[in-house]
Amino acid sequence: MRVKITVSYDGTTYCGWQVQPNGITVQECVENAVFNATGEKVRVTGSGRTDAGVHALSQVAHFDTNCTIPPQKIYRALNVYLPPDIRVISSELVSDDFHACNNAKKKTYRYSFYISDVEQPLKERYAVMIEKTPDLTLMKENSKKFVGEHDFKAFCSSGSGAKTTVRTIYSVDVVLKEKDLSVTVTGNGFLYNMVRIMVGTLVDVGCGKTPPSTIDKMLLFGERSLGGKTLPARGLCLMNVEY
Amino acid sequence: MRVKITVSYDGTTYCGWQVQPNGITVQECVENAVFNATGEKVRVTGSGRTDAGVHALSQVAHFDTNCTIPPQKIYRALNVYLPPDIRVISSELVSDDFHACNNAKKKTYRYSFYISDVEQPLKERYAVMIEKTPDLTLMKENSKKFVGEHDFKAFCSSGSGAKTTVRTIYSVDVVLKEKDLSVTVTGNGFLYNMVRIMVGTLVDVGCGKTPPSTIDKMLLFGERSLGGKTLPARGLCLMNVEY
Repeated sequence: MRVKITVSYDGTTYCGWQVQPNGITVQECVENAVFNATGEKVRVTGSGRTDAGVHALSQVAHFDTNCTIPPQKIYRALNVYLPPDIRVISSELVSDDFHACNNAKKKTYRYSFYISDVEQPLKERYAVMIEKTPDLTLMKENSKKFVGEHDFKAFCSSGSGAKTTVRTIYSVDVVLKEKDLSVTVTGNGFLYNMVRIMVGTLVDVGCGKTPPSTIDKMLLFGERSLGGKTLPARGLCLMNVEY
Repeated sequence: MRVKITVSYDGTTYCGWQVQPNGITVQECVENAVFNATGEKVRVTGSGRTDAGVHALSQVAHFDTNCTIPPQKIYRALNVYLPPDIRVISSELVSDDFHACNNAKKKTYRYSFYISDVEQPLKERYAVMIEKTPDLTLMKENSKKFVGEHDFKAFCSSGSGAKTTVRTIYSVDVVLKEKDLSVTVTGNGFLYNMVRIMVGTLVDVGCGKTPPSTIDKMLLFGERSLGGKTLPARGLCLMNVEY
């Protein structure tokens, strides 16, 4: 049977989702948990990779198993063998043609900032400090430029290996709640570091560090060098995957 | 000159505020930072100790120094030498008779829970899971029993060493926001583990694990054994100290 699982993790200490030679990954931990719970060595396929240090509220993955644990209870068995910063929050039986990566229709990422002139230890783990409140109106206006189908080549770090750099963005929501600023982006897929470069450029516009035309130029000319730096991983969280 | 500082910390990896032989404490880190910034070995006196693993949004402390750094800029110098999970968020000159502990009039602590049937890695660092939403009305009603001057002997772990177990509680606020439950307690002072036992008993009442009369009995008879267990440290945060 094929089982779909939803996984939540604090990515701080992991080298991202995908198994790799130099360091512990979330995928590896989940695969080890499946082995410990079922005795089966399986591949756990995620909806996509998240980079080193990126968090997930709700990553989706699937794997095949012959175990006798009822599928809706498998998550509890896996949690017995997972470290506390990774938890499978649900599991369910899906048809054999369900594929966590290929069938993903929409993904939502959130990037979190806090406004302060001193680092705040209780926020630093999941958000990045900016010293002054950016121009929210300017950020909201310019966020609309990303919506729709665009070539996001300029919003992609080298080493991506994606076949095409065209993606569709459905929404970009900029929200300020007291001193917490978040930018939530929903799209049909994301290139390597895409959200971190998009949001970094958008916040640079809001802080007056770069003119709004930078976004237009990046979308038009596809040159990464026109944009600002890639934001740190810890502010980013995969919020949701839709099928 | 005497300098008052406000310190924020993620207490996860510390053995509490107060210097002790077996492990690194926040006080020790701040004293080392003062030494590195000024060359002076000083005692940094906090408003009170926080236990191992307890966080602080706003702990207050003072120390005396002959350094030439302007007092309102000292916090920046200290942050250069502090680990990222401790930050001095402000500093100011105070009169020589200011005492961070003796002059503290009110302290506010918050205990945070989240409602879920699976641990949530992105919440676990600063909150404690409870499986079902407790009866909020019952919790709010019973929280009033703590308000006023009472003998909190039953809400105190052994090893306290306090001269008197009488304290005044000014307010207890129970707030549920979506799946996040917090209990915020303001008082003139707190005994060893007092908030963690108070809130633990209150939430046991809200979850139907103990009758509301337990609180009355504890206040009346002063017996710790009547109450529930002491809640974990990580859900507790010192929010504010008033002078």
